[in-house]
Amino acid sequence: MIIIMEPEATPFEVDNVVAAVEANGWQTHISRDSGQTIIGLQGKGQPIDPFHLGQMPGVFDTMAITQKFKLTSRSFQPENTTFTIPLRESEVTIGGKRLAIIAGPCSVESREQLLETAHAVKAAGATLLRGGAFKPRSSPYSFQGMAEQGLKLLAEAREATGLPIVTEVMSPRKVALVAIYADVLQIGTRNMQNFDLLNAVAQTQKPVLLKRGMSATVEDLLMAAEYILAHGNSRVMLCERGIRTFDNKYTRNSFDVNAIPVLKELTHLPVIADPSHATGVRRYVGPVSLAAVAAGADGLMIEVHPNPDQAFSDGDQSLTLSQFTQVMTRIKVMAAATDRSV
Amino acid sequence: MIIIMEPEATPFEVDNVVAAVEANGWQTHISRDSGQTIIGLQGKGQPIDPFHLGQMPGVFDTMAITQKFKLTSRSFQPENTTFTIPLRESEVTIGGKRLAIIAGPCSVESREQLLETAHAVKAAGATLLRGGAFKPRSSPYSFQGMAEQGLKLLAEAREATGLPIVTEVMSPRKVALVAIYADVLQIGTRNMQNFDLLNAVAQTQKPVLLKRGMSATVEDLLMAAEYILAHGNSRVMLCERGIRTFDNKYTRNSFDVNAIPVLKELTHLPVIADPSHATGVRRYVGPVSLAAVAAGADGLMIEVHPNPDQAFSDGDQSLTLSQFTQVMTRIKVMAAATDRSV
Amino acid sequence: MIIIMEPEATPFEVDNVVAAVEANGWQTHISRDSGQTIIGLQGKGQPIDPFHLGQMPGVFDTMAITQKFKLTSRSFQPENTTFTIPLRESEVTIGGKRLAIIAGPCSVESREQLLETAHAVKAAGATLLRGGAFKPRSSPYSFQGMAEQGLKLLAEAREATGLPIVTEVMSPRKVALVAIYADVLQIGTRNMQNFDLLNAVAQTQKPVLLKRGMSATVEDLLMAAEYILAHGNSRVMLCERGIRTFDNKYTRNSFDVNAIPVLKELTHLPVIADPSHATGVRRYVGPVSLAAVAAGADGLMIEVHPNPDQAFSDGDQSLTLSQFTQVMTRIKVMAAATDRSV
Amino acid sequence: MIIIMEPEATPFEVDNVVAAVEANGWQTHISRDSGQTIIGLQGKGQPIDPFHLGQMPGVFDTMAITQKFKLTSRSFQPENTTFTIPLRESEVTIGGKRLAIIAGPCSVESREQLLETAHAVKAAGATLLRGGAFKPRSSPYSFQGMAEQGLKLLAEAREATGLPIVTEVMSPRKVALVAIYADVLQIGTRNMQNFDLLNAVAQTQKPVLLKRGMSATVEDLLMAAEYILAHGNSRVMLCERGIRTFDNKYTRNSFDVNAIPVLKELTHLPVIADPSHATGVRRYVGPVSLAAVAAGADGLMIEVHPNPDQAFSDGDQSLTLSQFTQVMTRIKVMAAATDRSV
Repeated sequence: MIIIMEPEATPFEVDNVVAAVEANGWQTHISRDSGQTIIGLQGKGQPIDPFHLGQMPGVFDTMAITQKFKLTSRSFQPENTTFTIPLRESEVTIGGKRLAIIAGPCSVESREQLLETAHAVKAAGATLLRGGAFKPRSSPYSFQGMAEQGLKLLAEAREATGLPIVTEVMSPRKVALVAIYADVLQIGTRNMQNFDLLNAVAQTQKPVLLKRGMSATVEDLLMAAEYILAHGNSRVMLCERGIRTFDNKYTRNSFDVNAIPVLKELTHLPVIADPSHATGVRRYVGPVSLAAVAAGADGLMIEVHPNPDQAFSDGDQSLTLSQFTQVMTRIKVMAAATDRSV
Repeated sequence: MIIIMEPEATPFEVDNVVAAVEANGWQTHISRDSGQTIIGLQGKGQPIDPFHLGQMPGVFDTMAITQKFKLTSRSFQPENTTFTIPLRESEVTIGGKRLAIIAGPCSVESREQLLETAHAVKAAGATLLRGGAFKPRSSPYSFQGMAEQGLKLLAEAREATGLPIVTEVMSPRKVALVAIYADVLQIGTRNMQNFDLLNAVAQTQKPVLLKRGMSATVEDLLMAAEYILAHGNSRVMLCERGIRTFDNKYTRNSFDVNAIPVLKELTHLPVIADPSHATGVRRYVGPVSLAAVAAGADGLMIEVHPNPDQAFSDGDQSLTLSQFTQVMTRIKVMAAATDRSV
Repeated sequence: MIIIMEPEATPFEVDNVVAAVEANGWQTHISRDSGQTIIGLQGKGQPIDPFHLGQMPGVFDTMAITQKFKLTSRSFQPENTTFTIPLRESEVTIGGKRLAIIAGPCSVESREQLLETAHAVKAAGATLLRGGAFKPRSSPYSFQGMAEQGLKLLAEAREATGLPIVTEVMSPRKVALVAIYADVLQIGTRNMQNFDLLNAVAQTQKPVLLKRGMSATVEDLLMAAEYILAHGNSRVMLCERGIRTFDNKYTRNSFDVNAIPVLKELTHLPVIADPSHATGVRRYVGPVSLAAVAAGADGLMIEVHPNPDQAFSDGDQSLTLSQFTQVMTRIKVMAAATDRSV
Repeated sequence: MIIIMEPEATPFEVDNVVAAVEANGWQTHISRDSGQTIIGLQGKGQPIDPFHLGQMPGVFDTMAITQKFKLTSRSFQPENTTFTIPLRESEVTIGGKRLAIIAGPCSVESREQLLETAHAVKAAGATLLRGGAFKPRSSPYSFQGMAEQGLKLLAEAREATGLPIVTEVMSPRKVALVAIYADVLQIGTRNMQNFDLLNAVAQTQKPVLLKRGMSATVEDLLMAAEYILAHGNSRVMLCERGIRTFDNKYTRNSFDVNAIPVLKELTHLPVIADPSHATGVRRYVGPVSLAAVAAGADGLMIEVHPNPDQAFSDGDQSLTLSQFTQVMTRIKVMAAATDRSV
């Protein structure tokens, strides 16, 4: 860290800052630039909050000179993380040249609904099946999911189609249960900084799909991933799913397409895009899926339902089975144009 | 709910929407205004997601005609919720004419730090003691709190001062433990929509301080409180603590002072302001505290530390003991000017 | 408009609202849905502000049932607007199958800089030349542009290359001057709601490139365009250039890719993307350009400079000439994959 | 400015950055902290865009070590700016102990409306009269103001009441006209970065009320004021009027109360609050007015109308005359509690 003192800072104020920093185990190096004293920290002391330090008398500003995230950073691991999810007869590789296409209903609603969807998305080219058994709902009066019964249906759909299962876990108390059935554990948007849940999921050593919080910065997302990697579990996919902005009249969120090249530069972890939540509107899912692939995403997560207009219980904006097939056709063209495959 | 069809919607599209709505158990009432068909829902059917419905062909827009939150709303309970927290010799009333002043360190760091702070804030007029034993940290490498040892110190401080204890619980797995020691269970910003935690905390029937998520709307906050009230626990304080906006150069968050009169109108629950997190800067805590009281807040939560410049482990911006005493003097004047007391 | 009264609204309150509305020349139609009175407006009265109306006693909410923008809407004109910009020997069509590629330096700095850039971007496939002669700068102490001398250089570059000129006009006092030289008049981000400037530019009947304000909603943008179309000038390109959000650490703005399919649906006007301002970072311009085309943009505006590292006077993040050529190669592949051309 | 190179930056990259900086007339001072090269700029070269510089190979980050705004800063002028507005028989002082209370209708609509309001707000304690003659409207089809006829009515109201006039000017082409009638020229939210207008207004040497843009940072606001001060006109009031955030369901904007103590610290200019636009809701104007005064505002601008429910032409949320009188009673108590007066 570097600390810049104000031009009119007194020697007493400089001494105070130096003393505070050294009390935390750091060595200091003092220089003067453009008439202002600059204090550089050296060695290996206790972490210091720069914002707090910035409030000390005479301090003009502070600046971190290293990134906060470590294990998730590209400087720690320059090459892309890839990992495979083993299956009965084959396996799915995440983070490679082939895009991961995760598709399925928002909620598991019934055996018929799930199996029909699973077969259809597989036929259209999906590589993983998504479906929610435990649903985080903003209202306590809304459908909260089928719970373990939903997990069993997901396992049955995996048996029937060979697609690995991605499903959300909302509570550390349910991690062990969900881990029995799921191939990939999903951390939802509202839980991105539920640190106890991050720890519990990390310990399973299962692959994790970590969704960005709706007002989380890119740095917040990487720090949340850091919790998982710090437990020795580096099989983490990051998921951009739209952020909260001032304009939500025509779409629920704003898909942060900039985050895709930014994340690909900062981290070695695969980056998935969720155009369904990022738009909330079925007819925009296609264009935003293509944009995500064009920007460099390693995969897509798309909600699909056999009859979305009757899926009133949940309200996510899902493609019909035939719409998904059409979108997949365009995604394949896009993948080819960007030197990827589906 | 009301559904407005587009001017050019076909009879077929109108019929489809009517059929979809009636399939969910609703009756419909159709009228035409300004050349557009309006479909009103009547009776008591399954909840329908208006955003989803808005995507059906021919639908121009939809409109909820009742609020989503029920138990938390003023129309459900017109009079203010007040409740008392029992103590050894006395009790503290929340939501009445007297402001609740919750003060103390961000983290419990040591016996000396906590007791010195507790005695000082009590002398200055605080009515509850805050202190974190389990700390949600954006980095896995930061100090995570003293855990149960911190809770024991809080209980000791309560013994010594008579101040009830407000402390955060981060995980459903720790609710039972924290509830042994705490008088008020705090739900942190990052956990406002951790629904399993909300349920677990609600079931203790302990008073709850529910902090607004940093990008949660007022409606989101009330829906989160609804989870707690739906368990029969209505002793809930809402806490505005600053929201995330585009400008964070000089303060960490933007204190949403508008939310105070809005919440006081929409809900009967007491509203607390946290100027420490809302600004992140010690010298702005005073002005924003006064503003919150002026706008109608029922209390304040303020971070205080005997020696903030050495509290590097956490980085929240705390007042010194003497600064807190000075701010309290001004808060008392402000309370009198707004027909409240401290 | 529809007005929904609260369940407990009194007949007196209903009458008051009806009287207020009718005083503005509207007829009313009253119905009751789910126990609430609904007042529909019919006929053709004075415009009424729904937000204001919503504050009347007993009003629960109001709802506009038609869009505010008219001439810019697809329901007014279903087919895409296309227009040609005449040139010496040929012409450029905007809004058709072929993408408009607008490239050039942020500011005109010298004859050499501009001509070198103009020849290079033409060779790489650009169809219009951009360059700023009047620069809106947040600091009064920064370089404010070469003014008329810059315009003359732009005209010279057009002579030399045949590329039409896009340049910004910042003040109604300069519209006549800029219109002498420019083929397309650009309205900058900070002037999107400078209504006097919109009127002045509209009256020239020149094509206009209207940049979205950094916190303007899609609706605000369309209403600003409405000012221009209301003067009989429908040769307007809309430009998405990134919005202001809570996360600006790694990019200056957040490119709102959702806005592209939304705008293409709401309006018949062509939509251009500006990945240079939307990211502020040279190495993200490529991926975001591709994403914009994939999402359906009708063109791109990209900053290019012969030696960006020495263009310190302005600070926009420009591609070098060779980087632009490389990005154009990828844009051509992307155009082909989305059934467009360059 | 300080430039921090990445740990793995090569000597060649360091040399490149040094050369680029020196080419702009700066001297450099190189040091190494924590294994990273730090380049400090010294002397007085051309301004360099730090964001641009940050894109050069090997650069980790850059940091400005001085503030961008100069004449507006407290370090330039430590004592508060105060100025008086001369009147027939007396004068009004802005920025002193007495609060400036600017009240009146959003738009001048008629002689009766304006004079009735002017007399009433004066009787209740207002010190300046506001009223719009030129109205910036998001729709070209809305009422655009009474223009010069409105200005004449404002002048008549000043004659009748002795209150100085605050009115908006939207275009450099109208500055001369408006300056004939107005005592204070208002720059509206949408024009905060209309630099040609700022220059034109500055040159009149009239007092200016500069409203913060709805997504302008505090720094943007101070830089806009800098344009006016750079013309030797330092009689500028800054006005916080609510910012655009993700939550606009219950209020139109979010009043940024934090900005008041921040601005009072950064600048010597008086700070006015506009609770009418900051909330958009009549019944929240009172609480937010009190909060603004409690936080340290030097004045308030409040919309008042004799019959707001019939003022449909504009839609701003105005207090009735009697509501304004009631709010003023509470503002006087608040002023006394904060050592101010009305």
